[in-house]
Amino acid sequence: MGEEMRNKQIVLSNYVKGSLRESNMSLKESTISSEIPNGAVLVKNLYLSCDPYLIGRMKNIEGYFAGPFKLGYPISGYGVSKVLNSSHTDYKKGDLIWGITGWEEYTLIKDLTGVFKINDTDVPLSYYTGLLGMAGMTAYVGFFELCSPKKGETVFISAASGAVGQLVGQFAKLTGCYVVGSAGSKEKVDLLKNKFGFDEAFNYKEEQDYNAALKRYFPDGIDIYFENVGGKLLEAVLDNMRLHGRIAVCGMISQYELEQPEGVHNLFNLISKRIRMEGFIVFDYYHLYPKFLEMVLPLIKEDKITYVEDVAEGLESAPSALVGLFSGRNVGKQVVVVARE
Amino acid sequence: MGEEMRNKQIVLSNYVKGSLRESNMSLKESTISSEIPNGAVLVKNLYLSCDPYLIGRMKNIEGYFAGPFKLGYPISGYGVSKVLNSSHTDYKKGDLIWGITGWEEYTLIKDLTGVFKINDTDVPLSYYTGLLGMAGMTAYVGFFELCSPKKGETVFISAASGAVGQLVGQFAKLTGCYVVGSAGSKEKVDLLKNKFGFDEAFNYKEEQDYNAALKRYFPDGIDIYFENVGGKLLEAVLDNMRLHGRIAVCGMISQYELEQPEGVHNLFNLISKRIRMEGFIVFDYYHLYPKFLEMVLPLIKEDKITYVEDVAEGLESAPSALVGLFSGRNVGKQVVVVARE
Repeated sequence: MGEEMRNKQIVLSNYVKGSLRESNMSLKESTISSEIPNGAVLVKNLYLSCDPYLIGRMKNIEGYFAGPFKLGYPISGYGVSKVLNSSHTDYKKGDLIWGITGWEEYTLIKDLTGVFKINDTDVPLSYYTGLLGMAGMTAYVGFFELCSPKKGETVFISAASGAVGQLVGQFAKLTGCYVVGSAGSKEKVDLLKNKFGFDEAFNYKEEQDYNAALKRYFPDGIDIYFENVGGKLLEAVLDNMRLHGRIAVCGMISQYELEQPEGVHNLFNLISKRIRMEGFIVFDYYHLYPKFLEMVLPLIKEDKITYVEDVAEGLESAPSALVGLFSGRNVGKQVVVVARE
Repeated sequence: MGEEMRNKQIVLSNYVKGSLRESNMSLKESTISSEIPNGAVLVKNLYLSCDPYLIGRMKNIEGYFAGPFKLGYPISGYGVSKVLNSSHTDYKKGDLIWGITGWEEYTLIKDLTGVFKINDTDVPLSYYTGLLGMAGMTAYVGFFELCSPKKGETVFISAASGAVGQLVGQFAKLTGCYVVGSAGSKEKVDLLKNKFGFDEAFNYKEEQDYNAALKRYFPDGIDIYFENVGGKLLEAVLDNMRLHGRIAVCGMISQYELEQPEGVHNLFNLISKRIRMEGFIVFDYYHLYPKFLEMVLPLIKEDKITYVEDVAEGLESAPSALVGLFSGRNVGKQVVVVARE
């Protein structure tokens, strides 16, 4: 018989309708057994990742790429964890891993597909929730695999200071592109220009006319758009794309809390400008993770890539941190620290 | 001094606003000299092609893939012509060609880029306005190059009995796909099923709910959508696409006469289903024309591909024939016969 441990959890208490609120989640005191079935691992969660896609699983809807969460159960999402006990041959006590875990202190992980062992600990461990995890792979796949960027091309990134956008911009600069980002505050715009090395950046909240803003920064048009936002900004981008432009559709955060998403009226641009617009989900590309690490780890160590995180302290702060994503309260990748070791 | 010949023309008399009307065009009696500058050819026009894209050049707008026509000048578009006189080394009197020509009896063609010499006359000459011309290449490029079809995949084609759609359907059947088309009359639906060999077809005018119609014919979803229509039908298709679906965006005929195109509200499907949506213009792919002919000429001669044309007699009938495209009055490829030889 295993020992019972106290286990605080953030559970989904009611499905999201319209806007996400902290009251959709609640803190629950539970227990977990240290005894584990064959092939499973028991982990202590260290860092949790707040990702916009989670809202889709917090709605009681069909047709999202992953099914809805069950009411009363912990939110599950990406995190960095330490193995406390393992009955799986590939993992042993003390191993660090990243992958899907629970929003709780301890999680029993039965299905280890999509879990990655962390071999390189020369970098901040929290990076495996972002730069070296799902967000980093998303930036890498969306930019390099889908957009086939070439030196000298013009790149626009929305939600550019976020977990993914800040990396896309740096990848684009390393490729020799001209890079402009949009974000929602002066502080973020400063980050884009001064910390991430974007050529230009603007605060979309200060622009009356997105079309005019894009024309100002892209007088000759946009070759590559990394789409994180959707709606009216996408419409303005379509009008400013160049011939043979490419759009990697990564997210549409402006739309997730709307009852009825905004309509995009100018898709004819796809034809007249021969644009390729492609949606993707990073799960389909994890076979490229070793190749990604090979590229990005040296860049981090040589200080050629930087990463900004917004760190919320304690599991209790997770609901508020997640809610903050949708109003853009976070500056950089939103991480929750459950424990530091 | 060359001889002056009478030359009837269909000219653009005023720019299109909203719907195309016959009164946007008028018949003009003009003359043309038989003398020609160096490098040009004088042709007698035999067949003219009515194509939906023409409406874009009949509006006084910027940003279309080709500029607006000039008022008072003949409409220019695809046609089949006979060379009457040539000062270009590649062409001689009597040659048959297809490419961009004028909506008139005789045209002086100064720029011969994009003009193709017709070598195979074992097939109806009018086919070079459609099956063996721009429409055929459009079907070929959009289906094979953009959609990478595989045997057993499900294919939906809108405006399926038109110049392009009827061929896409036959290419898809030859590839071993399950093929459904939509069209706007019982007669066209019958053609799709009984002449072109589509597995299923429906009359969109009889469907209250496009979503329900698509679910009926594609209970497991659509792998490939060949888009000719846009608007509400595109929205319904997006909701019924399968994972990793591909959409070749060829046209959006339902939108061309609207002052404000309809909004598409469910582009999030691009992400959740990892859909690639790509617009194209056949002009970019004419280097594949020989490869296309190599495939399609034997198929025609072995009766493995059939083609339906709607033939309007006489240059005077061209305006009405073009207008008819937008209400779907034509059955099959709309051709205008100016002269038979």
